[in-house]
Amino acid sequence: MKIDINSDLGEDFGRYKLKIDENIFKIISSANVACGFHAGDPNVMNDIVLKLGKRNTKIGAHPGFNDLEGFGRRKISLTKNDIKNLMIYQLGALDGFLRINDLEMQHVKPHGALYNLAQTDREVAEAVLDSVYLYNKELIVLGLPNSQISVVSGKRGVRFANEVFADRAYDDHGFLVSRRIKGSVIKDKDLCRERVLEMVLNRRVKSIDGKYIKIEPQSVCIHGDNENSLEIAKEIYEALGENDVEISPLIEICR
Amino acid sequence: MKIDINSDLGEDFGRYKLKIDENIFKIISSANVACGFHAGDPNVMNDIVLKLGKRNTKIGAHPGFNDLEGFGRRKISLTKNDIKNLMIYQLGALDGFLRINDLEMQHVKPHGALYNLAQTDREVAEAVLDSVYLYNKELIVLGLPNSQISVVSGKRGVRFANEVFADRAYDDHGFLVSRRIKGSVIKDKDLCRERVLEMVLNRRVKSIDGKYIKIEPQSVCIHGDNENSLEIAKEIYEALGENDVEISPLIEICR
Amino acid sequence: MKIDINSDLGEDFGRYKLKIDENIFKIISSANVACGFHAGDPNVMNDIVLKLGKRNTKIGAHPGFNDLEGFGRRKISLTKNDIKNLMIYQLGALDGFLRINDLEMQHVKPHGALYNLAQTDREVAEAVLDSVYLYNKELIVLGLPNSQISVVSGKRGVRFANEVFADRAYDDHGFLVSRRIKGSVIKDKDLCRERVLEMVLNRRVKSIDGKYIKIEPQSVCIHGDNENSLEIAKEIYEALGENDVEISPLIEICR
Amino acid sequence: MKIDINSDLGEDFGRYKLKIDENIFKIISSANVACGFHAGDPNVMNDIVLKLGKRNTKIGAHPGFNDLEGFGRRKISLTKNDIKNLMIYQLGALDGFLRINDLEMQHVKPHGALYNLAQTDREVAEAVLDSVYLYNKELIVLGLPNSQISVVSGKRGVRFANEVFADRAYDDHGFLVSRRIKGSVIKDKDLCRERVLEMVLNRRVKSIDGKYIKIEPQSVCIHGDNENSLEIAKEIYEALGENDVEISPLIEICR
Repeated sequence: MKIDINSDLGEDFGRYKLKIDENIFKIISSANVACGFHAGDPNVMNDIVLKLGKRNTKIGAHPGFNDLEGFGRRKISLTKNDIKNLMIYQLGALDGFLRINDLEMQHVKPHGALYNLAQTDREVAEAVLDSVYLYNKELIVLGLPNSQISVVSGKRGVRFANEVFADRAYDDHGFLVSRRIKGSVIKDKDLCRERVLEMVLNRRVKSIDGKYIKIEPQSVCIHGDNENSLEIAKEIYEALGENDVEISPLIEICR
Repeated sequence: MKIDINSDLGEDFGRYKLKIDENIFKIISSANVACGFHAGDPNVMNDIVLKLGKRNTKIGAHPGFNDLEGFGRRKISLTKNDIKNLMIYQLGALDGFLRINDLEMQHVKPHGALYNLAQTDREVAEAVLDSVYLYNKELIVLGLPNSQISVVSGKRGVRFANEVFADRAYDDHGFLVSRRIKGSVIKDKDLCRERVLEMVLNRRVKSIDGKYIKIEPQSVCIHGDNENSLEIAKEIYEALGENDVEISPLIEICR
Repeated sequence: MKIDINSDLGEDFGRYKLKIDENIFKIISSANVACGFHAGDPNVMNDIVLKLGKRNTKIGAHPGFNDLEGFGRRKISLTKNDIKNLMIYQLGALDGFLRINDLEMQHVKPHGALYNLAQTDREVAEAVLDSVYLYNKELIVLGLPNSQISVVSGKRGVRFANEVFADRAYDDHGFLVSRRIKGSVIKDKDLCRERVLEMVLNRRVKSIDGKYIKIEPQSVCIHGDNENSLEIAKEIYEALGENDVEISPLIEICR
Repeated sequence: MKIDINSDLGEDFGRYKLKIDENIFKIISSANVACGFHAGDPNVMNDIVLKLGKRNTKIGAHPGFNDLEGFGRRKISLTKNDIKNLMIYQLGALDGFLRINDLEMQHVKPHGALYNLAQTDREVAEAVLDSVYLYNKELIVLGLPNSQISVVSGKRGVRFANEVFADRAYDDHGFLVSRRIKGSVIKDKDLCRERVLEMVLNRRVKSIDGKYIKIEPQSVCIHGDNENSLEIAKEIYEALGENDVEISPLIEICR
């Protein structure tokens, strides 16, 4: 059994550095690299690509809205054409840095508000998927199972991988429970460990209402920008190892 | 005999449109496309690449400083590493749009203050050339003959093409006379015509002090953003045709 | 009888100039000046304030979303606090240029998507009004009659002026008919003339369904960025003059 | 005897936070607040002004080049008019937040490359001073003694205050020794303490070559963004207290 672990990286900007624990580099098999719109700048992108390349961590694009002030987390009402072009621009820009390091882009994971909209808004999902497909048919798109982008990817023939969260509650439809709802974020690391194992080994997760939901994870998303997240990440990493689940990049999982 | 004619295009931004005479598209063989830093945005880039692709006009990158307010015309004190990375980012971004249209980048012409610095400042010239070479050894860099970037390109093994201006005076060293000096800009279109023919057919130009200077033009730069420039451009285009000089993209000239 | 005529100005940016017919300066009594977020930059703001000051045209702030690429026309999901602070920042910045010219700000008219949201979204209306009131209780806010911002301004004690459009259809509730609906934009200048006179002299307008609606205009909005708009503006200006309606700035109307 | 202690604050942006030790708020009497160009955004500005206002810390503007990516530390070749307008815009924007808190601007300290250029380049010094004077004759400009901006302020009648650095070496002319030179930055906090006392009590400082230089400090600049700086700041603060030097805002020193 294999699973990918992905994380967002390269989200510094100019003098501003997000505190990322270096240990995250040992845990992940795929990195989502910011492309200069919601975060990242050419120097930051160059440095993170170099670093990931040396570790053989697979690299994906993490394109977002052009909104550094809002860190790409605010919805902006764009047309499908706007979205397509902002995707192509950012994929191309990241590919510049991959090219000079003889590396290949593995996947695409939209960021923040663009990610969220792609899960629920069919137009946005189509714009994202069409741009990825147009750019490179081999690219794998990361998203939530049962989402608009998941459904549309099937119709469009775009390679898609389900990502799951150790620390987030799911509802009976397999959707993430909104962060505004009590119990939506799980902070206990033992519980996170248990849930990930349940998802990866048994292909199911217990919903917030206590029902088992089928889930087919290809990647687990982790964060390295606060201590608790990294603790959970380490816990998951070890638990998977102890259960003979191999941490492998998406490319080896989505064949 | 062959010569390339190049012009800067795709320099709109959002709602802002520079008035470009459509006739320029019939005249040029190579287009320098803005990459979103000094001008251009993803939508603008997509549209101009599509338009140029349909006409079979060869496309080059026109990267500049990240200064939309100053249209890339203000010097910014960057390190060599900063320049390298802003080049890679912009080349990559433009390549995104070329890729989805099955087109290939032909050349690179830095814009505005970056162009000017690369002619006179060895460090900047090296940073520009090294980034282009790193990105793609086949790319041709456009610049002034006798400039720093011209000299360094020879040492670095980067493909380089001399561009000349019909409407600018040259000094005895073959450098452009500063715009601040009287007589540096030639407005008479007959004189422009005559000078271009002299440069292209006889490989020489008369300096502002009356001396003949050797020059080896591979490309003539024209502008389509004011009426007079376009008049001169048409004049040159016709004059070259009448003298059996074939307008050909750089790729066919710099073999 | 008096009426104000307002128009958006100072929406150039860097090298980019919107073509504005100079005749508009003779027609308007109040100008809405862009504040550097959706359009305008410090140089542009300085120049337009100087020009308006010389003509004694009253000046208002025209704050918008921080989205030059979208010209402030795309909705961005901001919190009330975000909106308050972006308003204060932009009002302050414009006031810098007024201060050095011994001029006073007369009014505030939000731009584009911010304007539209303030008409329909109570939260946005409150954020806009509260920030204006906090900044300067004397300022008059321009908006649509019967809108959220109009209703809330009454409750909040913020000075408010109704603006009307000569070239836009109204529905039976006195709201503007969406531009997407056929007949929503009136292009015939005689009809525009007639409608403005009906609104200003008789305080009513015929809805798109043929019913007369009461309306209390304090300002007519005109545009100078295309030929047809300016033609309509001139027509209105003359019609008002011929009917002894005095063109006066808001400050003389909203006492 | 009185001295001001100033520090740069409000230099966060969006999600990006610079780690500032809260203790700095107890030490300083004047704060230089970023105005949204090199750092700071409307939310950040609002929050820091509120916080400083509650503590009665005097507030000054800290305007910089419009270069978030370079944190305002890269030279940009602007005209005097460009500089004047970017100053007015930023002073106005900050004043918006002061106004809604019934606070008054005390001083102006240009940031980064703009600060450095104003010390050495007469044109920049004039542009900065003229804009401040135009904006508000009462404002005090902070800069280096013996610099261009210091000399020109005398001629222009602009209020000016000398700032000194505890941790920087001076040459025989009373200029700061470049950071590139060995010994230019003093890391020993006892030595910093001793030097500040020498400057404040005895109006002199020992140059890097061992000569005593006359100096007339009105403000000591400190930094709170790294541990060592804050240690030095605390040391200085205590030393001044022990020697009966009162920490007072500029407004009470430059009468």
